[in-house]
Amino acid sequence: MAPNIFKNESDVVGFKQGDSIFGPGDPGELMFAVKSGEVDILIHDIHVETVSEGGIFGEMGLIEHKTRSGRAVARTDCELVRVDEDRFMTLVKYNPFFALEVLKVTTARLRRMDDRLKPPDGAEA
Amino acid sequence: MAPNIFKNESDVVGFKQGDSIFGPGDPGELMFAVKSGEVDILIHDIHVETVSEGGIFGEMGLIEHKTRSGRAVARTDCELVRVDEDRFMTLVKYNPFFALEVLKVTTARLRRMDDRLKPPDGAEA
Repeated sequence: MAPNIFKNESDVVGFKQGDSIFGPGDPGELMFAVKSGEVDILIHDIHVETVSEGGIFGEMGLIEHKTRSGRAVARTDCELVRVDEDRFMTLVKYNPFFALEVLKVTTARLRRMDDRLKPPDGAEA
Repeated sequence: MAPNIFKNESDVVGFKQGDSIFGPGDPGELMFAVKSGEVDILIHDIHVETVSEGGIFGEMGLIEHKTRSGRAVARTDCELVRVDEDRFMTLVKYNPFFALEVLKVTTARLRRMDDRLKPPDGAEA
């Protein structure tokens, strides 16, 4: 997120290194913003991303009202801001560029996932 | 896109079935909205999606200012609305829920891509 709108948030929750933040099948009603520390994101147990300070994750469950498909694990001790749907929609309504920032994040993720999609007869495994 | 804001657009471009709309390496300065017909999206020559009336594609290039990673081919004769960055940013500014609609589209795409990511020791090829 370019302008870190969650930087001065006081309503944070702490996790210890190695803690599971969410896993596949968990309800997906929250997005998280990283206030400090780092979080690993795994899809089908494959590490796809490390989210650090100022970054967000878990937006997919919140936007789609679906259960988690991925797993989030505290890579280090970390502090996270929990953003529920009401807060998210308020941010979208009063700051249209907030949605654009989230869109940039998901777009970058989509490009990385596209890059992982190898042709079925690709030379390498 | 839930409310099809491009439905009454008159500035459309037509493609014939089989026409290439863009391919890998092409400049990515436009997003397209499908006014009529269907468009196939391929990543690394793997078909990942068919976009039909009311849908959008190509938003990734516009948002990231990068060249195309995928290929878009007219599945049927189709009419497309071209949305450049100025238009896109105006839509975001004056209709915050436009960005949210685009976000829903990219999120659904990301979930589908995540579903394609198989474990390296997965049982099936």
